[in-house]
Amino acid sequence: MVLTNHKFLLALRPVGMPKRSDWTYAEEPVGEPKEGELLVQVLYISLDPAMRMWMNDVRSYVPPVGIGEVMRALGVGIVRASRNPRFAVSDHVSGSFGVQEYALTDGQGVTKIDARIAPLPKYLSVFGMPGMTAYFGLLDTGQPKPGEMVVVSAAAGAVRAVVGQIARIKNCHVVGIAGGAEKCRYIVQELGFDAAIDYKSEDVRQSLRKHCPEGIDVYFDNVGGAILDAALAQLRLGARIVICGAISQYNNSGPIAGPSNYLSLLTNRATMKGTLVLDYVGRYAQAGAEMATWMAAGKLKSREDIVEGLETFPETLLKLFNGENSGKLMLKVG
Amino acid sequence: MVLTNHKFLLALRPVGMPKRSDWTYAEEPVGEPKEGELLVQVLYISLDPAMRMWMNDVRSYVPPVGIGEVMRALGVGIVRASRNPRFAVSDHVSGSFGVQEYALTDGQGVTKIDARIAPLPKYLSVFGMPGMTAYFGLLDTGQPKPGEMVVVSAAAGAVRAVVGQIARIKNCHVVGIAGGAEKCRYIVQELGFDAAIDYKSEDVRQSLRKHCPEGIDVYFDNVGGAILDAALAQLRLGARIVICGAISQYNNSGPIAGPSNYLSLLTNRATMKGTLVLDYVGRYAQAGAEMATWMAAGKLKSREDIVEGLETFPETLLKLFNGENSGKLMLKVG
Repeated sequence: MVLTNHKFLLALRPVGMPKRSDWTYAEEPVGEPKEGELLVQVLYISLDPAMRMWMNDVRSYVPPVGIGEVMRALGVGIVRASRNPRFAVSDHVSGSFGVQEYALTDGQGVTKIDARIAPLPKYLSVFGMPGMTAYFGLLDTGQPKPGEMVVVSAAAGAVRAVVGQIARIKNCHVVGIAGGAEKCRYIVQELGFDAAIDYKSEDVRQSLRKHCPEGIDVYFDNVGGAILDAALAQLRLGARIVICGAISQYNNSGPIAGPSNYLSLLTNRATMKGTLVLDYVGRYAQAGAEMATWMAAGKLKSREDIVEGLETFPETLLKLFNGENSGKLMLKVG
Repeated sequence: MVLTNHKFLLALRPVGMPKRSDWTYAEEPVGEPKEGELLVQVLYISLDPAMRMWMNDVRSYVPPVGIGEVMRALGVGIVRASRNPRFAVSDHVSGSFGVQEYALTDGQGVTKIDARIAPLPKYLSVFGMPGMTAYFGLLDTGQPKPGEMVVVSAAAGAVRAVVGQIARIKNCHVVGIAGGAEKCRYIVQELGFDAAIDYKSEDVRQSLRKHCPEGIDVYFDNVGGAILDAALAQLRLGARIVICGAISQYNNSGPIAGPSNYLSLLTNRATMKGTLVLDYVGRYAQAGAEMATWMAAGKLKSREDIVEGLETFPETLLKLFNGENSGKLMLKVG
């Protein structure tokens, strides 16, 4: 039987928001694995803000996606053929499989996952990169102490919903900043945040002053721009800012807007530090185990926003940048 | 004998560079110390970039100077009268005496200094705030390790000349960024920096790439703006940026320009942290003793830029911001 692969290749470096015309949707016969390789049928594809950064021709923690290459993406899938002794047919796996239906890989960076412990989509959210990013970014880089004030931006997003819940588990006060009444209701009533600030209808700086009268101890930032500046203006002495991304800035065609209030770091002897989940690979298993116990105890919830159809990729990706998604965004491959 | 005090009061909050008309030059008879007070004749007045920040009506680590108040300044002087048991007539002292000839003080924050150990101006430079700022900012916040690459901006300035020399003492490679050939010659030939970048005639980003091909481990920043961005673009994994000030931004009438390359903190898992010397008061003595041994061994030099005449204050202050001074700027009170 000849299988057909559909895939999205990067056709152009987008200016501003990526458009459908920045991609080539291609079709090809699926190849056979060579010695050491395996063939994965991709079932779910993770859509992440960092993808926008990989599309620019700039040095980052990974090289940019080349023009004409399959768009890089994490995914989970099932092994359909294997000439790699580590993997057998029907194993479930996660890895960087790209935006396509079938991936041939040498197995580097591919991990077996157990669909009996959690449904597959959870391996792209709380047991995947977003969950690990939240866990290590908050606990290792943010170093929250019981009773401290933790503020999380884009708080209904995949990573930050976990950040806020872990901060609550660690007995911190948690304020989430999110867009719209529904997301604010969700993080307070369903996730147990102490308070929410709706950046679409409130003055974030004033609301931070109200909810954090003694200042912010840990600010977990994934958005940059005006909200980062508002948080900088309300830091407490010795505060830690965790820089996890800058979603508000990724589609800028001009230069990135730096945080004009950064001198608050000086006034408050505060720290701003970048966090990258890849530095913690050796500790993923321990973190996963701890988060599983929290989930079993009902203290940690996650929500996935699953869109069907590989072919919707160009439009679905934009949900990340216009604030439409709530929970971890992913594609279910048909 | 009735003594006369001359003093500079803040008359207006300056917009941009402070002008003579932003000050009131006033004259008054010198008062008598009350019980617990002492009268200090001010001999040298320290001029520091932070003074510009104190003139703005914004919350900082100290309150702003009020309109009509004596301009805040550190100084050294001699006790002329004392009703405070801690101080005797003819003691030499340092403290926050303001821009004036005579200061009445209750002795809070006033320290006795020994003019036999070092000339008085050194107590406003290497044995004063600039020296302590350099020592603790570099060693405590920057955490340089032997063999690492340390970059210092405004490197001929009072604080940073000491930073660079301490980094050399700690066996780091040191690159200084300074304005003009003479300052560059000074930091390399007299202070022993490994290299200098003249920001007036070189492309700082390119030169950083040349001098720091493997990236910057510690960047000590007092200038902000384009030079901070250039350093951010050349960080090494795990780099530390010490934020000590932002002299390029203090006279802005618009908003401060934030560092647009701050996402390099993420890419490089780097840290940007503010440092404030006042946090280390309890360790000044130990730092002073260590720096004295380095000075005695000829490893640590300092240069003072001493301008005569209290009445030149408004114009002399500007030397800090137009790059004219080389070494610690201070006024000698006539």
